[in-house]
Amino acid sequence: MSVDSTTLSEKAATSDDVTEQVFDVARRAKVASRALATAPRGVKDAALHALADALVAQADVIVAANADDVERGRTNGMTAGLLDRLTLTPERVGAIADALRELAALPDPVGEVVRGSTLPNGLRLRQLRVPMGVVGMIYEARPNVTVDAAGLALKSGNAVVLRGGSAAASSNEVIVRVLGEALEEQGLPADLVQSIDRFGRPGGVALMRARGLVDVLVPRGGADLIQTVVRESIVPVIETGVGNCHLFVDASADRDMALQILLNAKLQRVGVCNAVETLLVHREAADFLPVALSALASAGAVVHGDEQTASLAPTGVEVIPATDVDWETEYLAAEIAVKVVDDLDAAIEHIRTWSSGHTEAIVTKDLASSERFVAELDSAVVNVNASTRFTDGGQFGLGAEIGISTQKLHARGPMGLAELTTTKWIVNGDGQVRS
Amino acid sequence: MSVDSTTLSEKAATSDDVTEQVFDVARRAKVASRALATAPRGVKDAALHALADALVAQADVIVAANADDVERGRTNGMTAGLLDRLTLTPERVGAIADALRELAALPDPVGEVVRGSTLPNGLRLRQLRVPMGVVGMIYEARPNVTVDAAGLALKSGNAVVLRGGSAAASSNEVIVRVLGEALEEQGLPADLVQSIDRFGRPGGVALMRARGLVDVLVPRGGADLIQTVVRESIVPVIETGVGNCHLFVDASADRDMALQILLNAKLQRVGVCNAVETLLVHREAADFLPVALSALASAGAVVHGDEQTASLAPTGVEVIPATDVDWETEYLAAEIAVKVVDDLDAAIEHIRTWSSGHTEAIVTKDLASSERFVAELDSAVVNVNASTRFTDGGQFGLGAEIGISTQKLHARGPMGLAELTTTKWIVNGDGQVRS
Repeated sequence: MSVDSTTLSEKAATSDDVTEQVFDVARRAKVASRALATAPRGVKDAALHALADALVAQADVIVAANADDVERGRTNGMTAGLLDRLTLTPERVGAIADALRELAALPDPVGEVVRGSTLPNGLRLRQLRVPMGVVGMIYEARPNVTVDAAGLALKSGNAVVLRGGSAAASSNEVIVRVLGEALEEQGLPADLVQSIDRFGRPGGVALMRARGLVDVLVPRGGADLIQTVVRESIVPVIETGVGNCHLFVDASADRDMALQILLNAKLQRVGVCNAVETLLVHREAADFLPVALSALASAGAVVHGDEQTASLAPTGVEVIPATDVDWETEYLAAEIAVKVVDDLDAAIEHIRTWSSGHTEAIVTKDLASSERFVAELDSAVVNVNASTRFTDGGQFGLGAEIGISTQKLHARGPMGLAELTTTKWIVNGDGQVRS
Repeated sequence: MSVDSTTLSEKAATSDDVTEQVFDVARRAKVASRALATAPRGVKDAALHALADALVAQADVIVAANADDVERGRTNGMTAGLLDRLTLTPERVGAIADALRELAALPDPVGEVVRGSTLPNGLRLRQLRVPMGVVGMIYEARPNVTVDAAGLALKSGNAVVLRGGSAAASSNEVIVRVLGEALEEQGLPADLVQSIDRFGRPGGVALMRARGLVDVLVPRGGADLIQTVVRESIVPVIETGVGNCHLFVDASADRDMALQILLNAKLQRVGVCNAVETLLVHREAADFLPVALSALASAGAVVHGDEQTASLAPTGVEVIPATDVDWETEYLAAEIAVKVVDDLDAAIEHIRTWSSGHTEAIVTKDLASSERFVAELDSAVVNVNASTRFTDGGQFGLGAEIGISTQKLHARGPMGLAELTTTKWIVNGDGQVRS
């Protein structure tokens, strides 16, 4: 088999010094993770409560450090939205601490026996859920993710290596120090939660190359960040997040139900991955469009549409001609693409062409249509007569959400704590050998 | 987040033409896979039987094409072992066909409901097992893998794109043609089983870059091949195979049991990943060593050992001084590294340092030792009082074996057909929206 050795050796040649230091961080995380891997739930939950207490006790110090980040962000022209996500107040620190207490209340995924049997030769097999070991997180300028990621990792028995955005560097430095001190007070190693922010961007690159030291890498943030990690990492990655979700209104759809689901899926919260981005309408349900377009426009939504959609728009509702860019765009805004399709086949074909594989929904009264929609679409979640906004770990009853996986390996759709674990086979015998 | 854009653009610049052609193969595989994704088990099993019949009917043509490969291999100085693996006879073609019939007899993993519940708001959730879509296989000069991979993929509802070694090119070309014709006779698309061997090495590189078109890549072959795919692929990979397995004989071990397990694990079959490569002996069980070393030497095994081991060797048994190279080597031969350790902690520390995370075994009568060994070692399979040779899909009762995963994401240890599937959430409602 061919090796693209140029690429490999170039990868190896960048920032050797930083690479070695980041690898050393990961090695210390691995050693620390062993203390937690066999710790019973009580130890982990007590640690989570201690971390929460420490954050609240040190809220003033954290908020002061955060003020430096916010000031720098403002100077650098950060947008109001990003500044808001970056900003910590004592109340927000309290909410972050509460999230850790909620994690403590969730069941522990570690130790579950997934499968087991006794073989004909008497060997007793158990497949047990165990921690991954070291989880890497690469994320952007939201200091709450620092605590969130640490909590998720610890609850599932893992150590975590954090690479946050430089915009939150001062906040993250203080938070990681506070968490580390609290861990040590609980008799656990501070190395369980480490940041590599001090190494800057080369540190992030090194983390993506720490195969064998870091067991899984979870990027959290915008599409660019996620795609970079997916493409560059040789550490196994769980891809999350991008949701170009579709709603198909079938010929037989209850029009009122369709309208409620459309408005909820598009507008209840617009900046999220489970919001609908494209509405497809069966041509026999075209009577739905004037009502739907009016409602969207009244709610302030911008509508992009094909010619048929435009021709059905009531007076005063503007429909911007849609292009392929609209079919592929995740607007993350009060904006929607609308298309009239000939039938279910055309709807399925459109979704197969443009979907990111996150969530699709059909509104229909027809059993055969619902069954074909569900069977023939290859997305993480497929809904019948329900809003796409339900695609969420909390809504699905999985407890804390790590993210929503749009890949097929290891995890698909909303991910709970179990997705930060792997399994181990344990075989008990009394001297069996293979014949 | 930093993008190593040089690396990315260089990747994109190699062999654009081949890349596009391989991507086109993958796209056709994706389209073909849809026909199979919703096919009931009966259709898939009938196809597997038809493929088996076709291989037997065309055995002469296949063996003739294979003779060209064998002749070329002999001219190129291929070793006897590799030539043997490459060679097909009518009998061997029959055995390969029989393996397809055995696959047909296995349960279908597709359609299993993994989890399900009704939420407080009345939404009905089901998490269903569904095919991956397109499976890529990169392997070496063993034409039986061509059929094996095709059968595993089809049984689990997937299309497959094959990149075999150039040494088996003539055999693979004929086999893929025979399989394609048989599929079409069954009313299934020939594109379900495609080879990209005609594109040579650049084709393999392109396959590793077909993220979004190929859903999972499974390398099968030697350590070099597997490591190349793991490092170079941006398609998610399941890493298989390398087994630096350990056997620890505890102070309390039944010496007879330890000897039987040692000889079985090391010598029953030496070229396999679940064979033992290092023996660790508790110093209080050092009396085991003279007997064990004699038995190993009598069976023709080469022994590498530390000083204590050498000092305990009976007259006439040669012990080659062991170095770190021995502790890390997967010999895949009648060769073993032996070390005396102070206690269980030292054994665990040695295994953590050198193991590839495949299989470790302890022989002991002590409950606490067995529990610590099992809990503290982070390998895919950990055995108590049983040979490492049991780490195998067939032995574990999983049916057909795709390989043995030594990674933690998606699959760990012996993999059955279920590991070539993913899941899909299906949500049924009656108009629910999120509040």
